[in-house]
Amino acid sequence: MKKNLDLLFAHATLITMQGEGTGILEDGALGVCGSRIEVVGPSREVLAAYTADRLIEAEGKALMPGLIDAHIHTGDGLLRGVSQDLDNWMQHGLWPFEQELRKDPDAVRKGSMLNILEALKAGTTTFCDFDTPMTEIVQNHIRLGTRARVAELISELPKENRTALGELYQFDPAEGDRKLRRNLRLCEEWNGAANGRITCMLGPQGADMCSRELLEEVREAAARLDTGIHMHVAQGDRETNQMQLRYGKRTIPFLDEIGYLTPRLMAVHLTEATDEETRYLAGKGAGMVLCSGSIAIIDGIVPPAAAFLQASSRLALGSDQAPGNNCSNMFNEMKFTAILNKCKAGSPAVFPAWRVLRMATIEAARAIGLGQQIGSLEPGKKADLLLIDLTQPGLSPVIQAPVRNIVPNLVYSARGSEVEMVLVDGKVLVEDFRVQGIDEKQVVREAQLAADRVAQRAVQPFAAIPATPLRGMMQRGEL
Amino acid sequence: MKKNLDLLFAHATLITMQGEGTGILEDGALGVCGSRIEVVGPSREVLAAYTADRLIEAEGKALMPGLIDAHIHTGDGLLRGVSQDLDNWMQHGLWPFEQELRKDPDAVRKGSMLNILEALKAGTTTFCDFDTPMTEIVQNHIRLGTRARVAELISELPKENRTALGELYQFDPAEGDRKLRRNLRLCEEWNGAANGRITCMLGPQGADMCSRELLEEVREAAARLDTGIHMHVAQGDRETNQMQLRYGKRTIPFLDEIGYLTPRLMAVHLTEATDEETRYLAGKGAGMVLCSGSIAIIDGIVPPAAAFLQASSRLALGSDQAPGNNCSNMFNEMKFTAILNKCKAGSPAVFPAWRVLRMATIEAARAIGLGQQIGSLEPGKKADLLLIDLTQPGLSPVIQAPVRNIVPNLVYSARGSEVEMVLVDGKVLVEDFRVQGIDEKQVVREAQLAADRVAQRAVQPFAAIPATPLRGMMQRGEL
Repeated sequence: MKKNLDLLFAHATLITMQGEGTGILEDGALGVCGSRIEVVGPSREVLAAYTADRLIEAEGKALMPGLIDAHIHTGDGLLRGVSQDLDNWMQHGLWPFEQELRKDPDAVRKGSMLNILEALKAGTTTFCDFDTPMTEIVQNHIRLGTRARVAELISELPKENRTALGELYQFDPAEGDRKLRRNLRLCEEWNGAANGRITCMLGPQGADMCSRELLEEVREAAARLDTGIHMHVAQGDRETNQMQLRYGKRTIPFLDEIGYLTPRLMAVHLTEATDEETRYLAGKGAGMVLCSGSIAIIDGIVPPAAAFLQASSRLALGSDQAPGNNCSNMFNEMKFTAILNKCKAGSPAVFPAWRVLRMATIEAARAIGLGQQIGSLEPGKKADLLLIDLTQPGLSPVIQAPVRNIVPNLVYSARGSEVEMVLVDGKVLVEDFRVQGIDEKQVVREAQLAADRVAQRAVQPFAAIPATPLRGMMQRGEL
Repeated sequence: MKKNLDLLFAHATLITMQGEGTGILEDGALGVCGSRIEVVGPSREVLAAYTADRLIEAEGKALMPGLIDAHIHTGDGLLRGVSQDLDNWMQHGLWPFEQELRKDPDAVRKGSMLNILEALKAGTTTFCDFDTPMTEIVQNHIRLGTRARVAELISELPKENRTALGELYQFDPAEGDRKLRRNLRLCEEWNGAANGRITCMLGPQGADMCSRELLEEVREAAARLDTGIHMHVAQGDRETNQMQLRYGKRTIPFLDEIGYLTPRLMAVHLTEATDEETRYLAGKGAGMVLCSGSIAIIDGIVPPAAAFLQASSRLALGSDQAPGNNCSNMFNEMKFTAILNKCKAGSPAVFPAWRVLRMATIEAARAIGLGQQIGSLEPGKKADLLLIDLTQPGLSPVIQAPVRNIVPNLVYSARGSEVEMVLVDGKVLVEDFRVQGIDEKQVVREAQLAADRVAQRAVQPFAAIPATPLRGMMQRGEL
């Protein structure tokens, strides 16, 4: 007798991400039972052995693992595009908006909801959401059904930080302690929630924003909870200056000294890390999260991912945030990762499409500590899946031999709008290109109302920025 | 009495591209009469003075000029993604496919149709289509309703080009003459067709592929017909080697000598041009077409557009072709142009969003010689328009003050899938995201069938490529 499945996809091109490449299987089938993948194989074999409550004929479509956004601040969702094309986006534009946004937790929540919705529709199923207050933001992931590996931002900077540029930051240990405790509370309350869809990490904001003592407490807590540390590392010259002033060292040697360079660390950005530092960190087993779009737009820099790959494959991709990168779309990140690194190296052969696809799926899963659960199509793994319509004009035609063009087209041409169906934990979240059980228009309307409020309140503090090129851009009718 | 219009958009954010910036007008209205824009202004004023057969309420939407793809080989549409991530995409992968494709004019036509459809849905309204046989391809533009400025590829290389790598190409003057005559016939038969939607240029394929005599004939013909010359210039080191071997000069000094550096010239790529050569060419009034995505993927190079802009604003963008760039989407080109140039300069302030938007609209129109007709929303210009849904999650929320975020979001976040409606020459070609009067699925199906045929025929010649990394990539399961 045939075994019955909840859901069975048949006659798809499976991009399993098994093995060392992309593990493509033509005319494949995949069965889902509960929250997990039950079977993966040739359609003929699977159809001979299984029935299903729902059979999805997937000819002309690709079925692949959900994409992993390994670094995203969804709470910034409302501030998309308000501070662009500047030498110093934070000081010259973003700061007044950010300040007003953060006084309004409802606006943070609404922006986060919009940001997650945007990413989900473009195929992101797992979010390493690094924001605050995460105890509230995480409820958006519960509501939308997405998988999230979340951390609070832990910083020891005083609430009113009045340090002049170039001076050493003052720390407020009470503030640092409060934020660490909030992150620990998040772990207690939410780790393993929603059938394990929600897991928690610790989130020191940067080595320059926490004292050595606080960083050591975080390290001990991570060991005790057996979880990872999500942290910006070497993210800018301001950080490097602070580290030099305080410790006479650069960030990575300092982190090495305090025992941070272990597989628990997810080192985000490495914008200012040298190739040598990066290889050293990689060799110690730490992961790297590369935010190609964000760092290119904000800094005009391509981070040392190529150096990282010389020593490790624990490289994941992240969309960072809406102000700066503007979009949270892992197809966008894959494409930029490939192309920016080709131009950095002056070689079209580096960062091939198949390898970049791994960075958004199986390698990312391993880098964030979920390699056993997600990132590939394998029996026993969670059913986090995308069905992609290969008959959309930008992905057509499909050629299978003598060269298969599907993976290059997914990386270099797909925009995210070809994602027809999304499952997370075995549940259908997107079908026929629409998010299920959520009024998308309502999410957008609520975000717009909250943004109107925040923008209105930002008018005065924005006017107080002494010299922002944005003012001239508005006056000259460029924006 | 109010004047009656065919079509009136009201309460839109108009991105007029008038003036030196983007010329944004909040709560604007635009009226269309026949093929032309009749009125542009504040909604209140326009609604007080006009009625219309059709009134489109466009709150929450942006209305902007159609995008201009200033360099595209639509005939290559079927070969999307077959030759990627290689040091020599043509020799190591594309060549056998290209050869088989070009033996099958029906396949060229079907691929072109797919390529135009893809681009149109993403907001491209004008195509500088540079391909052969253009007398056939141009009929796709007629059928779809797009605006096209077309040229045949003129080359003097023999049909069977057997030159070894590094040797001087042999020319076949009869072949060159045949191709020039074909281009002239195209001009005779098609220039001004379809209410002026189709205009023609001359298309020498490269200074290395035509004799000096043929290039001079082309120059004279262009002057006689008062049209432009669409030409690859300094597109690779093979071209530079040929020019050195034949004339002892690099391409741009040679073109200067034969009188090509004039406003008639649309110089495509300039991949191998020095900054100094590029500024010189710009100073002579020639236009430049920058194919950011294509050249980054194929060569790992960011062409010298920044140097060009020091001397001229006649810079347009092009998507080039499906094998290589993989997609024909001017939103993609705008984004890559901004970001790659920021990374090249190491500065986030260069190539701001508003300027890149100009390169895909008004500056492009001027560079290709249609500045009086298209590229901005102004009374008297052709009604080539896009209506963009700003309530799509990736473009939300919309903020108008103290900083307007619409243009940055169009450049850094839009994917093309937000284009809700497209008009060309006053006619609605896309509505509610769907191409009107064309069965899109049928276009894709026909392209797929033709691609199956071409790929099948390419199996043997592909197997004969002595050493292509693609074979290993297929065998290792990477593709």
